[in-house]
Amino acid sequence: MAHDDKGVVKEVEWSIKVEDGPWKRARISCSMCVFISSLYSKLCKFMKKAWEIGVNDPRKFIHCLKVGIALTAVSLFYYLNPLYDGVGRNAMWAVMTVVVVFEYTAGSTIYKSVNRICGTTLAGLLAFGVQWVASKAGKQLEPVIVGVLLFLLGSAATFSRFIPTIKARFDYGVLIFILTFSLVSISGYRIDELFDMAQQRISTIIIGTSLCIIVSMIIRPVWAGLELYVLVTGNLDKLANSLEGCVAQYFEAQSTSEESNKKLMDYKCVLNSKATEVSMANLARWEPAHGRFNFRHPWKQYLEIGATMRRCASCIDALVGCINSENKSSDEIKKIMSTTSMKVGANSASVLRELSITINNMTKSKKLDSLVKEMNIATQELQNLLKSYSNTHNVNAKETSSLGDAKMEIPIMEVIQVVTVISLLIETVARVEDIVKSVEELSKLAKFKPEMSKCDKSKQRSTQNKILPDQHDEEATIKTLQIV
Amino acid sequence: MAHDDKGVVKEVEWSIKVEDGPWKRARISCSMCVFISSLYSKLCKFMKKAWEIGVNDPRKFIHCLKVGIALTAVSLFYYLNPLYDGVGRNAMWAVMTVVVVFEYTAGSTIYKSVNRICGTTLAGLLAFGVQWVASKAGKQLEPVIVGVLLFLLGSAATFSRFIPTIKARFDYGVLIFILTFSLVSISGYRIDELFDMAQQRISTIIIGTSLCIIVSMIIRPVWAGLELYVLVTGNLDKLANSLEGCVAQYFEAQSTSEESNKKLMDYKCVLNSKATEVSMANLARWEPAHGRFNFRHPWKQYLEIGATMRRCASCIDALVGCINSENKSSDEIKKIMSTTSMKVGANSASVLRELSITINNMTKSKKLDSLVKEMNIATQELQNLLKSYSNTHNVNAKETSSLGDAKMEIPIMEVIQVVTVISLLIETVARVEDIVKSVEELSKLAKFKPEMSKCDKSKQRSTQNKILPDQHDEEATIKTLQIV
Repeated sequence: MAHDDKGVVKEVEWSIKVEDGPWKRARISCSMCVFISSLYSKLCKFMKKAWEIGVNDPRKFIHCLKVGIALTAVSLFYYLNPLYDGVGRNAMWAVMTVVVVFEYTAGSTIYKSVNRICGTTLAGLLAFGVQWVASKAGKQLEPVIVGVLLFLLGSAATFSRFIPTIKARFDYGVLIFILTFSLVSISGYRIDELFDMAQQRISTIIIGTSLCIIVSMIIRPVWAGLELYVLVTGNLDKLANSLEGCVAQYFEAQSTSEESNKKLMDYKCVLNSKATEVSMANLARWEPAHGRFNFRHPWKQYLEIGATMRRCASCIDALVGCINSENKSSDEIKKIMSTTSMKVGANSASVLRELSITINNMTKSKKLDSLVKEMNIATQELQNLLKSYSNTHNVNAKETSSLGDAKMEIPIMEVIQVVTVISLLIETVARVEDIVKSVEELSKLAKFKPEMSKCDKSKQRSTQNKILPDQHDEEATIKTLQIV
Repeated sequence: MAHDDKGVVKEVEWSIKVEDGPWKRARISCSMCVFISSLYSKLCKFMKKAWEIGVNDPRKFIHCLKVGIALTAVSLFYYLNPLYDGVGRNAMWAVMTVVVVFEYTAGSTIYKSVNRICGTTLAGLLAFGVQWVASKAGKQLEPVIVGVLLFLLGSAATFSRFIPTIKARFDYGVLIFILTFSLVSISGYRIDELFDMAQQRISTIIIGTSLCIIVSMIIRPVWAGLELYVLVTGNLDKLANSLEGCVAQYFEAQSTSEESNKKLMDYKCVLNSKATEVSMANLARWEPAHGRFNFRHPWKQYLEIGATMRRCASCIDALVGCINSENKSSDEIKKIMSTTSMKVGANSASVLRELSITINNMTKSKKLDSLVKEMNIATQELQNLLKSYSNTHNVNAKETSSLGDAKMEIPIMEVIQVVTVISLLIETVARVEDIVKSVEELSKLAKFKPEMSKCDKSKQRSTQNKILPDQHDEEATIKTLQIV
């Protein structure tokens, strides 16, 4: 809803200020025009923004069409007589299931479907038991027994939703359990064909969920696992760009364009992606094997990688803060440290990019070890350079010893920024090593294959072309996602 | 569900190894005992964990009782004849509404209730229109027209859920809109008393939501706004503890207990609280005025404060990383910098604690300005100390000038850690100032009153005792929450 305060105020002003006369109506209608046109322009802006959301990620458009298809398909149970005769008015439950269960990712749809079916079945059986016991106690006691049990079971089930493991896996199932138990046990008081009702409810729910799962998995599926995987590899690249960029910007003291500045801030995405990672990892475990991912792919390890990445990102955040601080260093020391520092920055960025490639290809990288070694050597060099700096400096001071006491002074304030940047860089390198460890753990858990030589690759590709066409589809999706 | 792989394996081993004979049965039953007892002990652990969750925050127990009460109350519509005669079998919708709408916080319950009512009403009206138009086109064309419109509207409404503003405020409403529109427009094909059905659905939903809102707001309400407020003030205190603690630990080089070490890591909570803050802020705006919060309390500003706090926390994270790094500084320079650095740490912690008190009391702090000034003076002192360090050092070196060249060397590697810690500390102070600004912005937006003298306070309190007893309740709740 778009409220236009300014427009309203203008209109009020108009109607107060104008004197009675033949112009009054014209003026009011004019202010109405202003109001409507501003409303219209706001609506246009909103539509433009919405359109951009879809254009930036066309899978969102496709998802909407999929929901439309599933809804229209399930409505056939009402419109076609042979189908309607089978389920009757309870077809309503199938429609309801489609609306509630169909989610953006396949994982989420499966999670909700399985939870809905299990919750309904369990609660239905339990409610029957309760109803049977209660009915033996007579018509007067029945509501009391059912009421007390409803209170107890409702409370207990609600409490279970606070327990983290249940919350992560069965939250929706517990909700449906409470819902079905209440409906069936309460209805039992008035309805005689309770068993038919429950049976029809379950069969219509199965119809609805099957339809959702089929549509969601067949028409351009969006896998939560793949989303997580693309998010993590993308974040590794972002981290690499930010790290390399900010070191280069500082030591080269280049005036940067807005675009490259924006790229420097990429690490902030990493800091903010925890919630998405957790929810995607929770949903991914419901998904069947797809593309190169097995059913029991170690999705949890991606969370571990995410956590180490965030630690690295907060170090980069401090680095950026330090670079923008007021204590500027002298250009002299910056020049001396420049080459080696930029080497450290570039090397650690290469390590991060190689990690991204490793995860992307799901192969053990041959280059990784040597890249890490290079990074560590460069870091050691930087430390040595820093160590030798005071000597160098003294040599310089000696040359200008005619200035007397000046030779003894090391202007710490001129050095403090560079020293801080360098030690934060060293700390960042240590955290990059943590990321390396967590990715290596992933490669163990997911049994990444050793990298092949180019010759092997082309051989394997020709075999894959014959047996795994869907993997190519997946690769194309990943490329699209990475561009997005 | 607790699977015990070990137990199962043991059982299999037993049944393979044992030879046929009179002991076989006894052994199998023994392995069953082991299996059951391990299952039992796992269950006990699970129950203990669940119990602890409730004991740590008794409001969770209360919430479960509230759900039980609401469920039992709504079931009366089925059990009591006068009530049942009014709504009939549609009482089911009321039960359903209670299960689906009742949430932990009052804000969430209100958000869902309002969305459910609005979504149902809007969709109901629209579906009538569609049904009326379609019925004019004849029995054959009707399903086609309804089907096409269902496809279009379903897709469009699903797409709107991707738009951030709609997602944040009306996500549930759009879901219910699609649900109701589908049900009513499809049902129209077979049911004649469509208007009665829709009317009853709306009235039962209103009954259910009203019951939820009443129970949720009257019996020990959990306000999302209050949760956000307690989270933010608590995080300010945590930040203060971490900052002060890690500076003190570094410069005093005290061996720390596990408990104090745990406290040092408190800043990590701040880094991880974004998702909770955003969802609480979104829900808080649905809540009516409660305690000291108006209906239009600027909840969004708490997100701003949260963002500045996270920036500060990532600086502390780098600081902690730096303190634990391998390059240890000499004790000499640490001693020289110790007093002033700890003063900076303590002063910025005081500023953070004062900010927490400011938000807590919702009054403009008198002390804040002077505390910020003190913090800045201490920071300036620290910078000056660092400036003068090289001179001091040379003086010391001069005294030992018999050692020849030694006097000219400043061991940078021995200084690097301290210099980094200090400049990170200075950067942290700059970020603390950002927090101060965002809290000041909050105090403007929420119109915090100026702090009163003690005399004024006691006067006001005696007046409040007469007119605002619920504020005292709220204060008690805040105290409990802060302990939790």
